[in-house]
Amino acid sequence: MRTLARDVAQHAGGQVTLSGWVHRVRELGAISFVLLRDRSGVVQLVYQEKVPFTLESVISVSGEVAANEKAPGGFEVRVNSSELLAPAELDLPLAVNQDLDAVSIDAILDQRLIALRNPKLRKIFAVQSAILEHFAGYLRSQDFTEIKSSKLIGTGTEGGTGLFQVDYFDEKVYLAQSPQFYKQAMVASGMERVFEIGTAYRAEKHDTPRHLNEYVSLDVEIGFIEDEHELMDLELEILAAIFAGVSAECGEVLELYGATVPSRQELNKTPRISHDEAKQIAADKMGRRLFEISPEAERALCDWAAAEHGVEAVFVYGFPRKKRPFYTYPDDTKTRSFDLLFRGLEITTGGKRIHQYAMLLETLPRFGLTPEGLADYLQIFRYGCPPHGGFAIGLERLTQKILGLQNVKQASLFPRDRRRIRP
Amino acid sequence: MRTLARDVAQHAGGQVTLSGWVHRVRELGAISFVLLRDRSGVVQLVYQEKVPFTLESVISVSGEVAANEKAPGGFEVRVNSSELLAPAELDLPLAVNQDLDAVSIDAILDQRLIALRNPKLRKIFAVQSAILEHFAGYLRSQDFTEIKSSKLIGTGTEGGTGLFQVDYFDEKVYLAQSPQFYKQAMVASGMERVFEIGTAYRAEKHDTPRHLNEYVSLDVEIGFIEDEHELMDLELEILAAIFAGVSAECGEVLELYGATVPSRQELNKTPRISHDEAKQIAADKMGRRLFEISPEAERALCDWAAAEHGVEAVFVYGFPRKKRPFYTYPDDTKTRSFDLLFRGLEITTGGKRIHQYAMLLETLPRFGLTPEGLADYLQIFRYGCPPHGGFAIGLERLTQKILGLQNVKQASLFPRDRRRIRP
Repeated sequence: MRTLARDVAQHAGGQVTLSGWVHRVRELGAISFVLLRDRSGVVQLVYQEKVPFTLESVISVSGEVAANEKAPGGFEVRVNSSELLAPAELDLPLAVNQDLDAVSIDAILDQRLIALRNPKLRKIFAVQSAILEHFAGYLRSQDFTEIKSSKLIGTGTEGGTGLFQVDYFDEKVYLAQSPQFYKQAMVASGMERVFEIGTAYRAEKHDTPRHLNEYVSLDVEIGFIEDEHELMDLELEILAAIFAGVSAECGEVLELYGATVPSRQELNKTPRISHDEAKQIAADKMGRRLFEISPEAERALCDWAAAEHGVEAVFVYGFPRKKRPFYTYPDDTKTRSFDLLFRGLEITTGGKRIHQYAMLLETLPRFGLTPEGLADYLQIFRYGCPPHGGFAIGLERLTQKILGLQNVKQASLFPRDRRRIRP
Repeated sequence: MRTLARDVAQHAGGQVTLSGWVHRVRELGAISFVLLRDRSGVVQLVYQEKVPFTLESVISVSGEVAANEKAPGGFEVRVNSSELLAPAELDLPLAVNQDLDAVSIDAILDQRLIALRNPKLRKIFAVQSAILEHFAGYLRSQDFTEIKSSKLIGTGTEGGTGLFQVDYFDEKVYLAQSPQFYKQAMVASGMERVFEIGTAYRAEKHDTPRHLNEYVSLDVEIGFIEDEHELMDLELEILAAIFAGVSAECGEVLELYGATVPSRQELNKTPRISHDEAKQIAADKMGRRLFEISPEAERALCDWAAAEHGVEAVFVYGFPRKKRPFYTYPDDTKTRSFDLLFRGLEITTGGKRIHQYAMLLETLPRFGLTPEGLADYLQIFRYGCPPHGGFAIGLERLTQKILGLQNVKQASLFPRDRRRIRP
């Protein structure tokens, strides 16, 4: 029966069997101290001999648990028997047991399979797993249905730009930029409340610390809403559930990164400002006129929210019509849409959608679109669709901002960018 | 404050506001009876007038709740005020409020957006949502981490056949057939126990009731196992959790389909037979020699398991080496791999994987592979990988078999096959 590193103290004085990776080896005369790493942590092994293990080799050992205040966790295991399950070669391309903070993101991504063995890097994805859990958990508690829609589409709802093309038998199809069409369809079908966790693709050539060409989109869509403020209310509830979950389950990881998550009280103070106000506030902070909310302005707005409202988050609503997709519900020259900026980065775009067939038909030409090109999409509305809206949270961006990572690629296990398609 | 159809009885004698779709209209002289459908069910509305609503229009009404034993649920709502939120056109391409059992799968898929309004069809996906919930829930309870790997890969671990090609900037890449490489990598990274819920792609030209070109794969991988029987044990635990969850949350849907799920006791009786035994048993049932386990043989084996063991499921292990991918752990001329057949269909393939670098290097040439072509993959093993294995459950196949659907496409919201790329 295997014992995990974190549970060794419970077996003080007894025998345990442990399995894991050789994290570090230190020899002191005829005695060897080995730090054994498993999914739960590290534990010190003591051998009365020199050990032949290379770093990262996988071993299974049995021994007696003894107190040692100098060992991690206050206990060590004095090894009786030891088995090498898989040897590691000596030419490790990255030092797994070192702090990799000083290593460049490119060097880390080039050696992604080895870099992820570093516990600090690996634990980013424990946080990501907790986000997935609590996003879904909260929405299920509110009667939402989880859907899985196709990622292969005939054409984009937002036109053909920014789409990756796929050879699908004898046809050309595209990788979906979002499940927009499908989540609206499922609200209209009568599910009313849906969410989807799925990959989304943007064939944009940018290579910045805030962009990925493939990312995981946490999508929400809900029927029978009055306005976009209900969506912001819902998003705050989701984030509160995620932050509470991450805090409870990943406290150690937060500590490792010197990170904290906003409390429920702080979240509730998230200000809601119009796009015009946002431009004015950012312009005042930055000391120059703004034509749109740039990445720099997003940072200025979050600084403003932290200083004025005590929370590093701000909702910006009322984006101009021409800055939003055709399906966004209009409000004169503005729209009933919003972004959520968190710690200097847009992590959500959302809004109320047009649900009236007649209004949609009237809107298409303003965006250079035709009813023929959107025939499937229009069918949703032709046969009765409730007022509805939704939003999407970028999983990697949220992970990044929770832990204070410099680059969103650090929050993707196997990020894809213009130059990077492996491992 | 909106009341749902299922909660109307709780407001007997009081006023409620309801919103939903016009499911059916019946006029009796000057009185109109409207069945209103929302996500929770249907409720009868009574109007003292003729109503102008077309079927599927979305309305919001207020009225008084009164007992009426002839109404669904024993109560009806006598409408005081009524608002049309979105009218539906008259030319509905499918009758939403009828039994669609007699309509062909192609006709249903051609009108997928309308067909999914049919409550019986829509509720297939309530079951699917419950499967997703309990698959993840059980694994989290066992210390598994949920991962999200890239679906864009440079080459397949199993060669380039059966892959869809993507134009990725100036390169050609492929849609992943499975997260095999990544889930093994994350076990080796030290996560030890991982699962992934993601889309998988097979560019196969088959068009059968058991195949999809895009499907959702429920992937599991676990380190420090002894043999493939531990994987079968784990799969039974997962299925028991899923079946219990579906039974508790979707009892009404099971009833609608005349379906039941195996009990824990039945599942525990699932026989485990070798590939050779399986061929013999199926051959005896079918009255002819078999060279491989055909779809017909899968049905025969499940019939046998039901008759002999009281459960419509059977594990087949010990597949020959040449029938399994190169990474499968060998056992002389056989492998430590298995399939799970459930109700006549293979819903899982899995097995122990080769974890020793030297054994992998020796194996590649037998499969016509080179270390250069699998350089990224080999790096997982070069630096110490524990003994491990895993499996994948097809989400749509499991949904299909739980509900007894004829065609796996019925269990995909927006199925993709050789001819079908929309909606």
